[in-house]
Amino acid sequence: MITVLKKGTSDAQMQTLIDWLAGQNIEVHISRGSELIVLGLIGDTSKVDMELIESLDIVESVKRVSEPFKQCSRKFHPEDSVIEIGSEGTNKVKIGGGHFAVIAGPCSIESEEQVLCVANAVKAAGATLLRGGAFKPRTSPYDFQGLKADGIELLLEAKKATGMPIVTEIMNANHLPLFEDVDVIQVGARNMQNFELLKELGKIDKPILLKRGLAATMKEFLMSAEYIMAGGNEKIILCERGIRTYETYTRNTLDLSAVPMLHELSHLPVVVDPSHATGVKSLVAPMAQAAVACGCDGLMIEVHNDPPHALCDGAQSLTPEQFADTMGRVEKIRRVVEGI
Amino acid sequence: MITVLKKGTSDAQMQTLIDWLAGQNIEVHISRGSELIVLGLIGDTSKVDMELIESLDIVESVKRVSEPFKQCSRKFHPEDSVIEIGSEGTNKVKIGGGHFAVIAGPCSIESEEQVLCVANAVKAAGATLLRGGAFKPRTSPYDFQGLKADGIELLLEAKKATGMPIVTEIMNANHLPLFEDVDVIQVGARNMQNFELLKELGKIDKPILLKRGLAATMKEFLMSAEYIMAGGNEKIILCERGIRTYETYTRNTLDLSAVPMLHELSHLPVVVDPSHATGVKSLVAPMAQAAVACGCDGLMIEVHNDPPHALCDGAQSLTPEQFADTMGRVEKIRRVVEGI
Amino acid sequence: MITVLKKGTSDAQMQTLIDWLAGQNIEVHISRGSELIVLGLIGDTSKVDMELIESLDIVESVKRVSEPFKQCSRKFHPEDSVIEIGSEGTNKVKIGGGHFAVIAGPCSIESEEQVLCVANAVKAAGATLLRGGAFKPRTSPYDFQGLKADGIELLLEAKKATGMPIVTEIMNANHLPLFEDVDVIQVGARNMQNFELLKELGKIDKPILLKRGLAATMKEFLMSAEYIMAGGNEKIILCERGIRTYETYTRNTLDLSAVPMLHELSHLPVVVDPSHATGVKSLVAPMAQAAVACGCDGLMIEVHNDPPHALCDGAQSLTPEQFADTMGRVEKIRRVVEGI
Amino acid sequence: MITVLKKGTSDAQMQTLIDWLAGQNIEVHISRGSELIVLGLIGDTSKVDMELIESLDIVESVKRVSEPFKQCSRKFHPEDSVIEIGSEGTNKVKIGGGHFAVIAGPCSIESEEQVLCVANAVKAAGATLLRGGAFKPRTSPYDFQGLKADGIELLLEAKKATGMPIVTEIMNANHLPLFEDVDVIQVGARNMQNFELLKELGKIDKPILLKRGLAATMKEFLMSAEYIMAGGNEKIILCERGIRTYETYTRNTLDLSAVPMLHELSHLPVVVDPSHATGVKSLVAPMAQAAVACGCDGLMIEVHNDPPHALCDGAQSLTPEQFADTMGRVEKIRRVVEGI
Repeated sequence: MITVLKKGTSDAQMQTLIDWLAGQNIEVHISRGSELIVLGLIGDTSKVDMELIESLDIVESVKRVSEPFKQCSRKFHPEDSVIEIGSEGTNKVKIGGGHFAVIAGPCSIESEEQVLCVANAVKAAGATLLRGGAFKPRTSPYDFQGLKADGIELLLEAKKATGMPIVTEIMNANHLPLFEDVDVIQVGARNMQNFELLKELGKIDKPILLKRGLAATMKEFLMSAEYIMAGGNEKIILCERGIRTYETYTRNTLDLSAVPMLHELSHLPVVVDPSHATGVKSLVAPMAQAAVACGCDGLMIEVHNDPPHALCDGAQSLTPEQFADTMGRVEKIRRVVEGI
Repeated sequence: MITVLKKGTSDAQMQTLIDWLAGQNIEVHISRGSELIVLGLIGDTSKVDMELIESLDIVESVKRVSEPFKQCSRKFHPEDSVIEIGSEGTNKVKIGGGHFAVIAGPCSIESEEQVLCVANAVKAAGATLLRGGAFKPRTSPYDFQGLKADGIELLLEAKKATGMPIVTEIMNANHLPLFEDVDVIQVGARNMQNFELLKELGKIDKPILLKRGLAATMKEFLMSAEYIMAGGNEKIILCERGIRTYETYTRNTLDLSAVPMLHELSHLPVVVDPSHATGVKSLVAPMAQAAVACGCDGLMIEVHNDPPHALCDGAQSLTPEQFADTMGRVEKIRRVVEGI
Repeated sequence: MITVLKKGTSDAQMQTLIDWLAGQNIEVHISRGSELIVLGLIGDTSKVDMELIESLDIVESVKRVSEPFKQCSRKFHPEDSVIEIGSEGTNKVKIGGGHFAVIAGPCSIESEEQVLCVANAVKAAGATLLRGGAFKPRTSPYDFQGLKADGIELLLEAKKATGMPIVTEIMNANHLPLFEDVDVIQVGARNMQNFELLKELGKIDKPILLKRGLAATMKEFLMSAEYIMAGGNEKIILCERGIRTYETYTRNTLDLSAVPMLHELSHLPVVVDPSHATGVKSLVAPMAQAAVACGCDGLMIEVHNDPPHALCDGAQSLTPEQFADTMGRVEKIRRVVEGI
Repeated sequence: MITVLKKGTSDAQMQTLIDWLAGQNIEVHISRGSELIVLGLIGDTSKVDMELIESLDIVESVKRVSEPFKQCSRKFHPEDSVIEIGSEGTNKVKIGGGHFAVIAGPCSIESEEQVLCVANAVKAAGATLLRGGAFKPRTSPYDFQGLKADGIELLLEAKKATGMPIVTEIMNANHLPLFEDVDVIQVGARNMQNFELLKELGKIDKPILLKRGLAATMKEFLMSAEYIMAGGNEKIILCERGIRTYETYTRNTLDLSAVPMLHELSHLPVVVDPSHATGVKSLVAPMAQAAVACGCDGLMIEVHNDPPHALCDGAQSLTPEQFADTMGRVEKIRRVVEGI
């Protein structure tokens, strides 16, 4: 960490700061210029409160040289993390470090028939994990909030029937008992900085799929992963799902450069959700292909099978046929990228 | 709500949609052009799932004419809401409808001496509510997370000593019992769409200070207020605290046009937090003045009294003297705006 | 175009508007609801001034159903445009409609040796067009502004030596005479809405590579293409080069979903510049691969050959070896996408 | 400027960099830590190409300590600049350093009658400068582009009739001869980084009103002012007019914190345009008041007088009565801020 002191800082003031840092096991190298004094902070600066230092009257500016994250940093863990997923009665799935996983399923769980139908279809097309929303975060209190506990029950039945491990979103740590048989717990974009929830998920031993916040920087995203890891749970899967920009043709702007960038910064696997990112069905397949081409470790795709109400077809959901078609190209591109 | 159907939609498909809407007590007016069909949806469309309609294969686009919020909308409640704050042993404070309130205090509660000292100073300068952080949401798990329950205890002592009602942030609905004697519960920006927390706050009878999310639209902000109101708690104070943009000289970009805009859309009082919005001490006073000049109902300002560690002075905190000085100009500007 | 009138609009006021629209050959269909009146505007609404109508006192809101662009719209020109590039003595290159082109070269033209060296290297690796900056738009007036006319001379020599058509940026329509032998004229992001320059480029008969503005929506991007086409020059190549967001690890956020989205909206070819978009060398290859995987018609990549000052290697420039390596994977992915 | 070198940089590589910097009269202070080497660059670093250094293979990161702007910087010119405006036959108007100016007039010049009518009305209400668009930058080539040279003629007549100096926008340096009798030349947001235009305006001796770009940082904004000043023209008035965000209720997000921030960074006067920033008529008065409350040196407001087509009233334009009313409150708030 580099700290630039303001012109006119007295030696006594500087010494007070140096002593305070020494109390945190931080050594300081002083470099005096004609205009200003630069302090180089040496030691484990990930635990130094940068905002506090920045707020000192004598400080012009502070710059981190090393990143504030540690457990999720590739510097401290050079090899890719491989997350193992699965429980009794399910297939075993790995993600990260060359293992690729496809998570597919309906946006919301609606009925037993619907979940089973979609689950079988996506399994046949190559998906290895089943997703489905039971608790649904909705902007409006008047919109459908999901089948909740009943939705999880239906997902568990589909898991038993297909052998696919399941992924579903949690919105409240008090609901954790309902998630006992869920294989991967998803944290949605709106809860990425619900630190109380993250802390609770740090105490359990189950893979967490952490979605990037609506307007989160990659650094904040990794710091949220760090919250869970700091609690002891190291099974984190990062999910890029688009960020908020001024563009309106797409619901969000899918930030695919986050895939290789997060891989440089962290050893955690990165999956991409092209369905929520774009909100436009015709963009799901090309963006899934692009995600694989820049090295993602998995995809999360909405698939909808809807014979009962032919009118309805989720704006961003593929049909099972479209999904199968996309999976074919995805696999071929993955082979190019992996050099297989 | 206006729904534009795609070219080539059959009459049968259109009728299916009309029947489905009729089941929700929505009447439909059809307008046929040479190129497309426009449906005008008449009735209480605030409960119609716009995303679902948008996702229909036959639908080109949907546009809300009336807003999706209802209880917080000025259309359904033309007069300004006045929120009454205070409990046994405190002053009674009103906010909204011409009543102006100033919330001031330290960023974090650190010690009894600190809280009392700042509380007395801001009271003398005209603040009517005392703020202070006990539970602190921090981006990094390694940064100071607040004194928690002990911090609330210290706040309550300052309340007793000064008679000022207190405002502090909640991060977890399970902590509600600790907030029994807190006068106003604050929901931070990162929890603005923590819908589970909002629902719990809808069940209690206590004013809620709801901060705008880091990258929330005004519509989403009002929908989050609607979540609380839909549960029965109508005592909401909206707080503009800056939004995320690409600008880096300021921590966030204070969106002051939200003040008159939210007043047009809603009857709820709007306060402004220039301290967190800018993150720059020298900008707090001018932005507090600007907020009053465009009609806000209150201000929330960080004030720090720091004789013990002379080195430290929160980047965005005013000293009590600076605060008192600002309050003088704020009051004069308020009189101009109110035409007093 | 759909126009919603405010409650309380009189018949006389509405008739005045209808008559004014009739004068522009726009027919109006009226749909009266209990709460408001909806007007459907039928005819060539691309030339109706939407902002003007929105500004009328009686108008609640206006919504375009058809897009405001016409000549660049796929609706009016369903087949992909194929742009032919090349002049006497150069190879002939096509882009669009299944024809893929790779534009490569140094960021700035520095010397004859440099241009020739890089040109030969990228040609050997499969690039079909040579790029190089002669006029350089720089944020600071004190930064290097390019070799200007001399830079173009050096580019022309490299063109003669290699047979590669050349692409370089124009910043001022008065410089057009210098661009006589340039094969493709580039309009930079900062000039995307320099309408006076666009109009001048509409009068010439030469392909234009139009870069998306720093914070331009896709609609604004296409409207800028429309400016050139409205003048008569239909040879436009669109270039996605990243948009401005709050993220700081990358220079811009590459919006790859713009590739399939622009293809849906327009018949013009779309190329991607991963070098400027990310500003990070290690991200150039993965993002080039991703761009091809979602269907772009070409790539624009910075390549730097720098034996003379071994210290310097453009942050975002690949070496010729890295470029050749990337081209190999790009070609394989393209075959997957094209189904070859 | 602080440069952090990567771990593993050899002494020889570091020396090459130090020698290169010495050639630019930059002295280097070396500070070696256990993990990295920090170089402090001392001297006139405003002319050092930061991007070039950042691009070196051995460089981890670069941070400017002093700002890259110089002539517009308050550090080099501590007192406020006062810009004098006016020509033969007009009133003399000053702006900056305690002098406050109000620029008002119609969005577009439409007719002699319109300009004169509005000019007289705004003069009576206290405006000191007349604005009006003759050359209009429009997103669509099909929208009205202004009366151009005829519009300037009409403005000049209004100037003669009222004695008010006039402000109007230039879009092309080739049009400069038409602007000979224009008192203040406006550069629009879309041309803020049209560096060729800025350079031409640096050669003339006439005040320039420079609008902040659609998504420009304050630093870029000041660098564009620096372009003009580097050419010799120091008469720059900065204009905040809203920046692009994801919010849709307002056309742009007015960044009022830019007013005190720009005042800290620069000695140039700052005016605010609440009309274009918000695009909503009811927000113009409150935001004008807020702008004055945070210390702006002037306002730019659209006023429309429209008896002939009673239907039309620019969405963001005030009537002369509304303008006069706002001016009254603006003047009172200014007195509070100035402590008069």
